[in-house]
Amino acid sequence: MSGASLQVDERGRLRHFLTVEGLGRELLTEILDTAESFAGVTEQTVKKVPLLRGKTIVNLFFEASTRTRTTFELAAKRLSADVLNINVSASATTKGETLLDTLRNLEAMHVDMFVVRHADSGAAHFIARHVRPHVSVVNAGDGRHAHPTQALLDAFTIRRRKGRFEDLVVAIVGDILHSRVARSQIHALNTLGTGEVRVVAPRTLLPAHVDDLGVHVFHRMEDGLREADVVIMLRLQKERMRGAHLPSEHEYFRLYGLTEERLALARPDAIVMHPGPINRGIELESRVADGPRSVILEQVEHGIAVRMAIMSMTMRTTGDGTA
Amino acid sequence: MSGASLQVDERGRLRHFLTVEGLGRELLTEILDTAESFAGVTEQTVKKVPLLRGKTIVNLFFEASTRTRTTFELAAKRLSADVLNINVSASATTKGETLLDTLRNLEAMHVDMFVVRHADSGAAHFIARHVRPHVSVVNAGDGRHAHPTQALLDAFTIRRRKGRFEDLVVAIVGDILHSRVARSQIHALNTLGTGEVRVVAPRTLLPAHVDDLGVHVFHRMEDGLREADVVIMLRLQKERMRGAHLPSEHEYFRLYGLTEERLALARPDAIVMHPGPINRGIELESRVADGPRSVILEQVEHGIAVRMAIMSMTMRTTGDGTA
Amino acid sequence: MSGASLQVDERGRLRHFLTVEGLGRELLTEILDTAESFAGVTEQTVKKVPLLRGKTIVNLFFEASTRTRTTFELAAKRLSADVLNINVSASATTKGETLLDTLRNLEAMHVDMFVVRHADSGAAHFIARHVRPHVSVVNAGDGRHAHPTQALLDAFTIRRRKGRFEDLVVAIVGDILHSRVARSQIHALNTLGTGEVRVVAPRTLLPAHVDDLGVHVFHRMEDGLREADVVIMLRLQKERMRGAHLPSEHEYFRLYGLTEERLALARPDAIVMHPGPINRGIELESRVADGPRSVILEQVEHGIAVRMAIMSMTMRTTGDGTA
Repeated sequence: MSGASLQVDERGRLRHFLTVEGLGRELLTEILDTAESFAGVTEQTVKKVPLLRGKTIVNLFFEASTRTRTTFELAAKRLSADVLNINVSASATTKGETLLDTLRNLEAMHVDMFVVRHADSGAAHFIARHVRPHVSVVNAGDGRHAHPTQALLDAFTIRRRKGRFEDLVVAIVGDILHSRVARSQIHALNTLGTGEVRVVAPRTLLPAHVDDLGVHVFHRMEDGLREADVVIMLRLQKERMRGAHLPSEHEYFRLYGLTEERLALARPDAIVMHPGPINRGIELESRVADGPRSVILEQVEHGIAVRMAIMSMTMRTTGDGTA
Repeated sequence: MSGASLQVDERGRLRHFLTVEGLGRELLTEILDTAESFAGVTEQTVKKVPLLRGKTIVNLFFEASTRTRTTFELAAKRLSADVLNINVSASATTKGETLLDTLRNLEAMHVDMFVVRHADSGAAHFIARHVRPHVSVVNAGDGRHAHPTQALLDAFTIRRRKGRFEDLVVAIVGDILHSRVARSQIHALNTLGTGEVRVVAPRTLLPAHVDDLGVHVFHRMEDGLREADVVIMLRLQKERMRGAHLPSEHEYFRLYGLTEERLALARPDAIVMHPGPINRGIELESRVADGPRSVILEQVEHGIAVRMAIMSMTMRTTGDGTA
Repeated sequence: MSGASLQVDERGRLRHFLTVEGLGRELLTEILDTAESFAGVTEQTVKKVPLLRGKTIVNLFFEASTRTRTTFELAAKRLSADVLNINVSASATTKGETLLDTLRNLEAMHVDMFVVRHADSGAAHFIARHVRPHVSVVNAGDGRHAHPTQALLDAFTIRRRKGRFEDLVVAIVGDILHSRVARSQIHALNTLGTGEVRVVAPRTLLPAHVDDLGVHVFHRMEDGLREADVVIMLRLQKERMRGAHLPSEHEYFRLYGLTEERLALARPDAIVMHPGPINRGIELESRVADGPRSVILEQVEHGIAVRMAIMSMTMRTTGDGTA
């Protein structure tokens, strides 16, 4: 598929990182292995390696996200790259410049990578299709489509905790319909050979052909959690509450909120994940969020290492090999 | 007191820097001595030392202050640290995340220090009480409570100019009631053994039990300035003018504005200080602000060295000793 | 003239860079030659030289311009300087501080250079007149007055493409009246000995004594383009359209828009330039903007090298000679 051919060069190496779809198990495993080598860097006294010294990475954010921008900025700085933060809504487009002109201008300044956040699905692909050969594109979330670095850091966290994917049962709970995170997670987990991937959600928060994604669908929380090794709670976009999708926050928590009682249905060593920021008392109760099975902060921690891995791997193919 | 035990580790070394209260004379003197060694760095051609290379310092500002943020950012960069500027009001809290969740997330990214600015008194203490052992907190101003780096740079400026504290008369003039700067200054000057600390203000701008702070209270400017070695003019928050505290800017200047005539009441070698930004014609006239006795710009200059000292000292205790 | 004496030190070296007016051909050529040496740096794998390590450069922007700020920030980082971005409207001035007090404060922090963008003509000169001896000022655009780094990068692009200025015909098309870019370009091109500099505009978009600038004036596009070697299209400020200056965007394009047909009137090897961001279909059609004669993106690329040259040259005079 076009996603793969755009993302991978003729030698099978990662050139852009736009979506998990179309990337093979070997490549995803290489990302996780590379991230493993960077996980140590963030624990050193000097949390910096000179791998991308002299490279310029542009955080090109068409929608604000301090949290995501911060993780990419930290990852880039720990690789010794220079970082430019550009909030596009507030600048060029107000002067009537087209997206392509903005890109061409930044490329002319010899930047090496665009980390792209955009409200429209496909924006990162569009940009990757148009950049010069020496520039890499990393998708930091595009519309409802994909959030692939989040999916990879989740996979990294699961592998660190569980040591394998083969016989695991992973339950993804919440608003699957609107979640770019869920879409990317399902692709990553299936590609990595996860035993069983479940989605747990009301019919109104499931996409039309959800079965085609290779998941088992559950509508009752109690059924979906049973014997799960990993429980991934999705963030609920509160603004959807006002629409027809769900009656109220209270009602949502009653049906799909993760409590200690419900978590007891999963395996005794089950771990709880959430992409953050969490809504306490809506997606999960604080006892669970702060409890011994929660690995939510480990996810954040691993996010730096995984992004360092993806940045250094894509730069390796676009650079001259000496970087 | 709890301030001290929170700020100082079991070996008596600075771990956080939240308030001057509870810190001993020896420790304050160590800060001033360390700042002295950094004062030279900012005068070099290459204004940089590699002391905090690979460390990540977060400017966590819950209220905007370009001036204060700039001084901390410069101090951090001159110590070779990486700096992240995070304006919290504009990001996480709008997504409903709690302060503690924001902290936990940033900690998980292995940041090493929070420089905290907050409109609420006690915010920096709260954060220091909850951070992980390897993270330091520096208070960059919290509500009406404290602005301890300002107090230390003021003390540094006085020591550089006067060479000692013992027999000095220091007059602090203006809105003592609402000033976090004044509170911190009084503690610092008394701890350092200043001969006499005076406050000069109308009754409406003095806190209830001002005498307990160890100061001499004056209501008439002419009395308070007499024989002073150091005159510290506080910034007047213009918005207070509209309330019951003071009749008008003009009236304030007439009663408490520093003019050359009034300054003549102080010692011939008296110096004039102000935390900035100054309101010309309200707290002091331009002839004084720009005159030979003004050390207002020296205060700004020393602010970098003092903040470098505090950053490097707190990091020393939280790091592994090799930093 | 005062511009020159302010910009050049007693040994004829560049101290500030405020305007092209008053700078001699030798100095402009030295800037172009220095930029040539930096053009290679941006094409290296490690796009960084340690020339300004430990120096602090402040982007002091009184009006927002992400594009211009980005080019200066990149240039500074590639010289290894530390960069502070300060948006003045959003900070000090809201606290009632005067411009001079803001300057004095930043100087006290031992910053080395101000890159100034201001809506008022003469702002950069004012600042240069008041900074301390060790601080340099670079004008990044002041009102209608000057945008000298743009003019120099244009000259650099012409020299790279044409190899000389002597016998060239350069046509500048558009709103000469309101353009700080045009003013700076005319001075630069004339100083560098360009064969013929033309301006092409309706009477309403020409300044009163335009002939005094040393240009040939044309009102019909077809006349102005004939046998031109270089065509510089100015950006049209759309907001001017609503006033009395021009009837409509459509009418402007009909009279002064650059089409392939019109471009055919210029020399066969003519190049097309534009300071960006371009308004497609208003100043020029996309076939021209993206066509083989357009060097618009080369201008952007050269902008980094030219700014690196100016920054390093001005710092050389203000530093101690070892920088």
